[in-house]
This record gives sequence, structure tokens and C-alpha cells, in this order.
Amino acid sequence: MKLNIAVLPGDGIGPEVTAEAVKVLKAIGMAFEHTFNFDYGLVGAAAIKEHNNPLPEETISLCKKADAVLFGAIGDTAYDIDPDAKVRPEQGLLGLRKALGLHTNIRPVIAYDDLLNKSSLKVKQIKDTNILIYRELTGGIYFGERKLSEDGNTASDLCEYHRYEIERIAHAAFKAAQSRKRKLTLVDKANVLESSRLWRRVVLELAKQYPNVTMDFMFVDNAAVELIKNPRQFDVILTENMFGDILSEEASVIVGSIGLLASASRGDKHAMFEPIHGAYPKATNKGIANPIASILSAALLLDHFDLSDEAALVREAVDKSLQLHITTPDLNTRYNNITTSKVGEFIEDFINNPEETNLN
Amino acid sequence: MKLNIAVLPGDGIGPEVTAEAVKVLKAIGMAFEHTFNFDYGLVGAAAIKEHNNPLPEETISLCKKADAVLFGAIGDTAYDIDPDAKVRPEQGLLGLRKALGLHTNIRPVIAYDDLLNKSSLKVKQIKDTNILIYRELTGGIYFGERKLSEDGNTASDLCEYHRYEIERIAHAAFKAAQSRKRKLTLVDKANVLESSRLWRRVVLELAKQYPNVTMDFMFVDNAAVELIKNPRQFDVILTENMFGDILSEEASVIVGSIGLLASASRGDKHAMFEPIHGAYPKATNKGIANPIASILSAALLLDHFDLSDEAALVREAVDKSLQLHITTPDLNTRYNNITTSKVGEFIEDFINNPEETNLN
Ligand SMILES: CC(C)[C@H](C(=O)O)[C@@H](O)C(=O)O
Ligand SMILES: CC(C)[C@H](C(=O)O)[C@@H](O)C(=O)O
Repeated sequence: MKLNIAVLPGDGIGPEVTAEAVKVLKAIGMAFEHTFNFDYGLVGAAAIKEHNNPLPEETISLCKKADAVLFGAIGDTAYDIDPDAKVRPEQGLLGLRKALGLHTNIRPVIAYDDLLNKSSLKVKQIKDTNILIYRELTGGIYFGERKLSEDGNTASDLCEYHRYEIERIAHAAFKAAQSRKRKLTLVDKANVLESSRLWRRVVLELAKQYPNVTMDFMFVDNAAVELIKNPRQFDVILTENMFGDILSEEASVIVGSIGLLASASRGDKHAMFEPIHGAYPKATNKGIANPIASILSAALLLDHFDLSDEAALVREAVDKSLQLHITTPDLNTRYNNITTSKVGEFIEDFINNPEETNLN
Repeated sequence: MKLNIAVLPGDGIGPEVTAEAVKVLKAIGMAFEHTFNFDYGLVGAAAIKEHNNPLPEETISLCKKADAVLFGAIGDTAYDIDPDAKVRPEQGLLGLRKALGLHTNIRPVIAYDDLLNKSSLKVKQIKDTNILIYRELTGGIYFGERKLSEDGNTASDLCEYHRYEIERIAHAAFKAAQSRKRKLTLVDKANVLESSRLWRRVVLELAKQYPNVTMDFMFVDNAAVELIKNPRQFDVILTENMFGDILSEEASVIVGSIGLLASASRGDKHAMFEPIHGAYPKATNKGIANPIASILSAALLLDHFDLSDEAALVREAVDKSLQLHITTPDLNTRYNNITTSKVGEFIEDFINNPEETNLN
């Protein structure tokens, strides 16, 4: 297979972790005789630096021409603290999601057996957790009208949803549930929000088309508790943009490190793959950033093109690295000098030669 | 002191837990020679049943005349699932917050030494956690304009904030921080929301008036993680309405049971005290509801009138009950027949006779 992959490393630790994911994709390309081409573009703080624009036109067109986008991270905190900044790295990511129409964000949350003791939660509570979060990504309060009054004393954001936006992601989530444990939980705040009531109405209607999927509803405040107290109750979680942001990040505590969580963002025409973590400027260029989230995002990219053996091999390699404690400091207590690129190299080696690496 | 207290038990487990809090307040009244009068009103599902109105006029005027309101819980799930319901119990609570102008909601999150092992989190992580959450309660997306298009295909909610709304709660939060560990964390989503940027701007300005308070900012998604991974880093958390709803409920996992979390809601003229938990219809009338959140809300009521010895005695009694495992099933593994009213009676007895109960 021939694939043109647009690579947007972003800023902070983005470039470091993305480099490892590219390494892994190259190894997969070699091993399975695929032609993967990589074209690089600027986004976020890196693009602001060069073009004073977090999302240059050329980056958008690069992504539009590509078969898939591999995204690193953005969010240099230099910009975080200043509410008056005119350009911010995040605009790059948000603009890209919109420009590519990436409405469906999928975030797997899996408790790895080898990492159970890394979690903040008690082992017996999290073992066997396997959740798939469907987060709507191009609607809601993220993209509604924003206003700041002229005197600067009033500010507002509009959370708006249209039926079709809910339907398309709900169909995807129900289908995913059908191939899993057949349970779907809609998380909303329907006791307060009109938009949440629309979500409930639409999802209740669609549910009739998926009679073999059990569905329930949960208020977002309660979901934030249940995710910690009893994560195993969940199979597929479906939710709107802001709630999905909060809950999927929260869910990283189950897994032990946010450096492990990958995501796929799908639209009708385009697809992008990115870690859910941010740019962690403090960790930049120290070799301590965990590349696994980025590498697992590459696995999701392979899945997207039905390259399931390839994706499986990447995951096997990742599992192996975790088993053998070949991991960055966020996870490791055993060895303390395993760098970002060491992890990538181990996984690359495993792919090149699964049998041998196994024996080490 | 003479106090007129409006009691709104609400629905679900609300009446049961409120009855215990009233018991405790009566005991305090006797012990300290105060005159506490209790006047009852209907709200939520209970009021819908009688008046087809979750917040009857007479309930509002009862509360307005009272010195303080003791609120139980609302949210009979009979109404939850139906997005088309015209009247919902929640309207009672939200309407009351607005009618009484209760803009500042204060939610203490304290890890009790005797309950550390009840938490979903590892003991070493939560020990000594003591957080005070300041949640804005009458603004934001909870009270912004709601729209549903005529064809029913588009729904929206407006998240709007005015400078004065931010200032009044921020001052209260900074003052609270001054009498504690002098740290204030503003939680927002300033990388996306215009309203969050206004929060940052206003709070940054006010911070200059409180030079001895260290302040930092955290994005809400990150805060949802940090609250679990490292709760001890927080002293006072200040945030807007929706984020405060999610984070304060999430924080209950630290404490071991949401049945322990009390809250105070303050306005310029009125004050209301309520557990943060909901109506848990499934538990109604089984004697299993934990009355501690309601009893600790009564302690916050006493604090509000500077009755600090009285409040301290209530807390001592609560601590004692936890120490001796006189607790409802959500917390108890030792005895399994301790009912809601047994817990209230123990606390009442302790107040009547601290020395003796101590010896039991
Ligand atoms: C960087 C930020 C704008 C982004 C979001 O809120 O969507 C991030 O937190 C994420 O979850 O991908
Ligand atoms: C019942 C509901 C409307 C309410 C809220 O969201 O404010 C509750 O969750 C709370 O936190 O007091």
C-alpha cells in the first residue's frame, strides 16, 4: 500500500514523540513492503515562530492532499497564561480539526496489565478496563460564536449542536459498540442544558436502529466519579466536545500515564492521529517524553487503512516494551535512563525482528 | 441566638438525610440555648407532585424570609431520562439559586484519616488532602440563554460571564486562601473559551490585591487529572459553574463517598446549605442514605452565623461516628445494619453528652 502521511510535529515535546512514531511507521513500511511517504508541516507555536500564524495555509493544503495526518502536540505554555495573546498554538489544532472536518474523535482507554500498579487507582478497581470514548470534535462550545463586549466586561461562548452533528458520531459509536461489549453510555448534562437534551433525543431515536446495544445515560458530573470508582462498567462512551475533553483526559489516571493515550480523529474525507497529551514544554528536549501515545496513534492510523496485522505488530511491540520496563520515567521505577528515542528504538527493533527481541 | 431556618427536604433521599440534620441542629440549639425555628417548604419532585411546579412561589418567599435555608436533594430520576419533560426537579434547585442570588458555592473536600482506605485512590496519595472549591453558582452556561429551533434540529446554550460575577467570588476565594495555605488555583479553559479568558484577566488583576496568596492557572481537563493524581497540591480552587460542578463531584472520590460532601451557597442576602449529592431515588426510604453530607451542611450553616463552637461540636461528633464505624453502608464494612437515622441519633447523643458517648 502507498500512503502519503502529513506529519505535523507541533511544539513542545511534539517533535520528539512524533519522530519515534515515524520511526515505527518506517519500520512497518519496510517489514510489510508498504510505501509510506512523510511530508512535514508546521503547526502551533512552531508555526507562530516562523509565520506568526498557528495554522499556515500551506499546512492545511498539505493535510488535505495527504491520506492521513500524524499530529504531535501543541500548547507551548508561553502562551497559556496570557489571556490577551492574539495568536495561540491551540488555534492551530482547533483550526485543523475544523478545516479537515474531523468530527469524530476516538480515544481508547485500556488498563495494561503490566502497568496496573502505576495507576493512581487501586488495582482491583481498574483491571480489565477497556473503554472507547467517542468525543464530538468540531461542534459545541469549542466552535460556537465567541463574544467579548467592547468595554471588556462581558464575555460569552455559545454551545450549539445540530442534529446531523450528533447523528454522525452516534452512528459511529453504536457501530463500535456492536463489535465490542454492546454497551453505549451517553454522557451529558440534560438536566440543565438544552443542547444535552437534543443529544438525548437524537441518540434515543437512533438507539432503535441498534437493538442489540444496551444504552444508558449519565450526567457528566456523575460520569467523572464513575470513571474512577467503577471504570469497568463502561464500554463505549459517547459525548460532546467539552465533556469529552475533560473525561478522556481524566481517564488517563486509570491507565497510569497520559503519555500512553492515543486518539484518532475522523471526518468524512480526512483522518488525523494524535496523542491526547499536550506539549509539556517543561519536558521538551530532555528525552523524557513518553512516545507511546504517539506510537499507538500510528497504530490507529494503520487500523484506519485496514492494516490490522501491521497495527497488531505495533501493539505487540508496545506491550513488550511495557512488560520489559523499557519505558520513560513517567512509568519507570526500575531503570532510570531510558529516553524517548530508546523506547522508539526498542519498538523499531522488535518490529524488524520480533523473534529475537523477544528473547532479550 | 434566634434563627429561622427554611427546610426544603426535596425528593429522593433528601427528606431522610435532612431529617437527621434537623435533629442535629435541634440538639445544638438545646445544648447552646439557641432558638432555632424550622419551617418546611416543597421543592423538586415533591413540589411537582403537589403543585406541578418544581419551585412554588410560597417556597421562594419562605426562603427569602428565613435567615438560612437547609436544602436536601432533588433529581428524582423519573424525570432524568426524558429530554422532553416540561417540568423537572432540577428547575427547583436552579431557580432557587437564582431567586436567592446564591452566587458563591463553597465545597470543602477533606480526606478523613479514618476513611483513607475507603477511597478509590491510594492512601499515600490522598492523606491530608484539604481543598476548598469555590464554584460560581448563578452564571455561566447554567443560566445563559437556551434555544431550541422550531424544527427541533438545533439547540444551544450560552455561557456568559460578566466581570462583576467573577470579581465577587474571586474576592471571597482569595480571602479564604489567606486564612488557609495561601494558594489559589483558577481552573478554566482559557485556551479555547472567551469567557475563560475573561476569568483569567479579572482574576489576574485581583491577585494584585492579595500579594501573599500564590496563584496559578490550570486547564479544566488537566485539573480533572491533577485532582486524582496529586490532590494535595491544591488549597483553594476557584472556577466557573459547569467546571465546578464536574470537579467538585469528581473530588468526592478522594473522600471515599459522595455522601460526605457538604456545601454552602452564599449570596449578598441569603445563604443555603446542601449536600453535594443528588436524590438517589434508588436508595429512597431504605435507611441506607448517608446523612453526613447533610449534617456537615448544617455545620456550615452554624459557621455562617459565627457559631464556631457549635459547628466544631457537630464536626467532632461526625469524626467520632466515622472513627467508631457508626456509618451507613456506603462506608461501612464492619457493621451492616446502621441506618440513616442511627447515624443521626449517634451524633445527636454525642452532642447531648460528649463525655459519655466518648466512652462507649
Ligand atoms: C489543546 C486543546 C485545545 C485540546 C482540546 O481541548 O481539545 C486538547 O486538550 C485535546 O484534548 O486535544
Ligand atoms: C442537580 C444539578 C442541577 C446540580 C448542578 O448541576 O448544579 C447538582 O449536580 C449540583 O452540583 O448541585
